[in-house]
Amino acid sequence: MHPDKRTRLSPVARRTQLIELGAEMLATRRLEEISVEEIADRAGISRGLLFHYFASKQDFHLAVVTKMADAMLERTAPDLSLAPLDALSASLSAYIDFVSENRDGYVSLLRGAASGDATLRKVFDDTRTEMANRTLSQTPVLGIPTGPRTRMAVRGWIAFTEEVVINWLSDEELPRAELVSLISGALPALLQDAAPE
Amino acid sequence: MHPDKRTRLSPVARRTQLIELGAEMLATRRLEEISVEEIADRAGISRGLLFHYFASKQDFHLAVVTKMADAMLERTAPDLSLAPLDALSASLSAYIDFVSENRDGYVSLLRGAASGDATLRKVFDDTRTEMANRTLSQTPVLGIPTGPRTRMAVRGWIAFTEEVVINWLSDEELPRAELVSLISGALPALLQDAAPE
Repeated sequence: MHPDKRTRLSPVARRTQLIELGAEMLATRRLEEISVEEIADRAGISRGLLFHYFASKQDFHLAVVTKMADAMLERTAPDLSLAPLDALSASLSAYIDFVSENRDGYVSLLRGAASGDATLRKVFDDTRTEMANRTLSQTPVLGIPTGPRTRMAVRGWIAFTEEVVINWLSDEELPRAELVSLISGALPALLQDAAPE
Repeated sequence: MHPDKRTRLSPVARRTQLIELGAEMLATRRLEEISVEEIADRAGISRGLLFHYFASKQDFHLAVVTKMADAMLERTAPDLSLAPLDALSASLSAYIDFVSENRDGYVSLLRGAASGDATLRKVFDDTRTEMANRTLSQTPVLGIPTGPRTRMAVRGWIAFTEEVVINWLSDEELPRAELVSLISGALPALLQDAAPE
């Protein structure tokens, strides 16, 4: 569903359109493979006009990665009407779907983000912090006291989850339900261990 | 202890010297901050001569990162004369020392490695695989059956360890002994959970 090349869009709509085209492309490519020429071409505008909306290629990439991170957080938001462990499984299941659908871009967010670009790194760090805070907000419900050891265990669990899901995508040796139970079971296991502080 | 600029070295000794200077610099800088000009200058040779030993800057960076990864694996090799859990704690303790002493470079290995450069990514992947295989070789001793779920849990535990240690370095809220017990306790906790397969 590519936009009509002759359409005249408002600046806000045009900027949104360009970011969405980038995010769509990011699903199946690494960030460094997204060329502004191709994006401008798909939107039916000149490369020069694209740089009217974004100060630089880095600025465009940043907007696209931020959109992906926001979409992931939205998809995985916990359903507070469920029991804590059920909400955790539902969020995990949504996370696995999101990562499956956006694999290459998500790996860019996870790893490339930490390379040299401080603003990209911030998107990654903020996203992880939000995931950790969500998880931590559930720990009192699970009967786990919150303290430095629990906070570290939760951040580590998120890295555990990312690694296990990324690996599972390239080698689906486990049934999906077992993947979910491995990850959701890991959280209480790690936190029980973290509890005595 | 910088080398005498007038020293004539054999090709093998010169190559080794350049890699060691790079690895020394990598302890406190990210990979992208290591300039071949500075390395050549410290070694008292011309930039042109450096490129006699390495095909490109990337090739030099690759050699430096490989040296760092090998040094880490050597420092953390399990002492097989110890009981499995004691050997695990000793390896972890050596790992924490190594990462403390080589922080910026190690973060480069962990994250930057996965950015765009396939050869750097391979160093990172091979290093993680070696760490996972070492850990897996201990699981039968711990009474844990080896299978796909255990293999995934071990890879995830390594990511957990990396994340927790990197975070701990910037925010030493936990005493070091607690850090070691959090990580070493996490492995059996994760594996017991992974066992029913």
